[in-house]
Amino acid sequence: MSDTAGKVITCTAAVAWEPGKPVTLETVEVAPPKAHEVRIKILYTGICHTDAYTLSGQDAEGLFPCILGHEGGGIVESIGEGVTDVKVGDHVIPLYTAECKECVYCKSGKSNLCIKVRATQGKGVMPDGTSRFKSKGQDIYHFMGCSTFSQYTVVADVSVVAVNPKAPLEKVCLLGCGITTAWGAVTKLPGVEGSTVGVFGCGCIGLGVLNGAKFKKAARIIAIDTNPNKKAWAEKFGATEFINPTELPQGKKIQDHLVEITDGGLDFTFDCTGNVHVMRSALEASHRGWGVSTVIGVAAAGQEISTRPFQLVTGRTWRGTAFGGIKGRTELPGLVDEYLAGKMKVDEYVTHSRDLKEIAEGFDDMHHGDCIRCVVDMSKV
Amino acid sequence: MSDTAGKVITCTAAVAWEPGKPVTLETVEVAPPKAHEVRIKILYTGICHTDAYTLSGQDAEGLFPCILGHEGGGIVESIGEGVTDVKVGDHVIPLYTAECKECVYCKSGKSNLCIKVRATQGKGVMPDGTSRFKSKGQDIYHFMGCSTFSQYTVVADVSVVAVNPKAPLEKVCLLGCGITTAWGAVTKLPGVEGSTVGVFGCGCIGLGVLNGAKFKKAARIIAIDTNPNKKAWAEKFGATEFINPTELPQGKKIQDHLVEITDGGLDFTFDCTGNVHVMRSALEASHRGWGVSTVIGVAAAGQEISTRPFQLVTGRTWRGTAFGGIKGRTELPGLVDEYLAGKMKVDEYVTHSRDLKEIAEGFDDMHHGDCIRCVVDMSKV
Repeated sequence: MSDTAGKVITCTAAVAWEPGKPVTLETVEVAPPKAHEVRIKILYTGICHTDAYTLSGQDAEGLFPCILGHEGGGIVESIGEGVTDVKVGDHVIPLYTAECKECVYCKSGKSNLCIKVRATQGKGVMPDGTSRFKSKGQDIYHFMGCSTFSQYTVVADVSVVAVNPKAPLEKVCLLGCGITTAWGAVTKLPGVEGSTVGVFGCGCIGLGVLNGAKFKKAARIIAIDTNPNKKAWAEKFGATEFINPTELPQGKKIQDHLVEITDGGLDFTFDCTGNVHVMRSALEASHRGWGVSTVIGVAAAGQEISTRPFQLVTGRTWRGTAFGGIKGRTELPGLVDEYLAGKMKVDEYVTHSRDLKEIAEGFDDMHHGDCIRCVVDMSKV
Repeated sequence: MSDTAGKVITCTAAVAWEPGKPVTLETVEVAPPKAHEVRIKILYTGICHTDAYTLSGQDAEGLFPCILGHEGGGIVESIGEGVTDVKVGDHVIPLYTAECKECVYCKSGKSNLCIKVRATQGKGVMPDGTSRFKSKGQDIYHFMGCSTFSQYTVVADVSVVAVNPKAPLEKVCLLGCGITTAWGAVTKLPGVEGSTVGVFGCGCIGLGVLNGAKFKKAARIIAIDTNPNKKAWAEKFGATEFINPTELPQGKKIQDHLVEITDGGLDFTFDCTGNVHVMRSALEASHRGWGVSTVIGVAAAGQEISTRPFQLVTGRTWRGTAFGGIKGRTELPGLVDEYLAGKMKVDEYVTHSRDLKEIAEGFDDMHHGDCIRCVVDMSKV
């Protein structure tokens, strides 16, 4: 039992007051967890493109003011009534994709898209319909059920998982989103061993897919990115080839080139860009008869994917995945163990480190081509 | 050995001389089969929308003059050198989707899209690059490797399969395309038993999917068609519910209605219309997390399907199928046996019968809402 249990904690958080403006550091009051809630001292958090996307105001469902951040690692400070799966002192990762183990999705055996807290999470509040954050006298919205840009946060007990305490939280916080999403998207697919894989985009997600494809012993792993600096990155993470589409002959489509050099297309392709045109290229670069193309990237609001239906009728499958299809409470601890066993890269994604006081600059870091992930030390204000 | 073996046969065929004009009956010369070819006396043929589509001139790849037809049944008249799997007198069904059992597709275990004769078939010729048909002194193109609108036709040995001679060819000729396409599209999917199924369009394909869904013991089978007369048809083939989208409240999308009445969407949906907007509805009517939507209908040239990628990211799968994923030489005889055992409807699809001399009227029959399939008796000129 910590001496702060049951009390409001006053700490520092990066608050997004309005769309299109940088986050600012503020003093926030974090209420104690109610029943089936967990209060976490966040030690480290990554900054993901989804945070930047919502901050930009492009996300029509973004709510302000809010505390962003959904790729965090921390330690349980206190728990509410009825919480059984984590205890004070546990090293934990908040989960924006909850896992209640009871809803139709959790029980389906076919999906990780737990519905238990989905409605309230989308409204920026806890399951009881209220916020645990206050700043300048007003309620501040939660974000994706996580809000890791605060030194303390409160999450639903279905939205957090304890992981091996031997794992450094400044690294495995990244398993809260990008790396896990990528890893699951490829490693949970049947038939990757010995296959050909194409990965469009070599940011955090793309590198994770490359790494997962290598782990699953794919025979040929082609990375595609318009940034030539990504070649070395891609190869480090498992690519056997790298193609820069801007270097193709004028008018040559990347999908046509890939179909040619792979004798009919790739067995598996992945969009890791969020660009709907790239999503189409990825589908059309997959093999006639059995190609499976997975959309991982999140497109901007209102954008649509399209293709000729003939692409599907001739045997290609277009699918997508959220959080890599990973069930957070059931599967994430195992991923941390894979990392500790040296089977999955994590440290290598961290190109930038920032103190909490520099978090606004951390958002800027992402716009640099050489940034894979910026990790923020939440203790340093 | 028939007494016509090795000789040119003169017979009657419906020739499509130019796009947009009705077929006309002509005297054609049918050359004997070369090595690995089979000459078939066609007794019956269905008329499929794909025949009409090519005849209309909308199919940019249509070649004229040609002999259309790809849903036929007949008897082997003679065989070329090296033909081993069928013999003179066998009851056979020509296959527009060949099965060589040797190419990368046939060996993949993942696709029925045999590539052996694909290139020449697309060019309207036999594998040696020439035609076996002549009329009015000129070569006539083959169509889809079948050309069943001729009293005699020649096909590659990989493009024909012998079936149980107890099966009436005036019925099982329909297994050459529509029924098999529909049946395979649903029955080859895992997980249909106990599931919810939505079938968009109640023509030959849609009815076949309904029938296959019932055969696989789907729990709830919803048929969707704008023609109210299709309700009775749909129920006869297995639908447990029928919805006419034109009867929904103004502005209500069919996919939204289906998601509501199925508590989140259907487990499996099928587009059986060829309409790209319906294809989108079918995808979006499938269940978040695990819905699988199959495109069966063939869209008009140049048309594209589209959706928000969020539909895929939240767990829906968009796929398609050609000839139902059925490997013709391996699997079609078994389907004929299913029919003979009373497990699969076939007779019920035949709403119209025509003599060969009325085949042009048979094309017109298809435009009537009450026509499922018109079968042509090829002996009657």
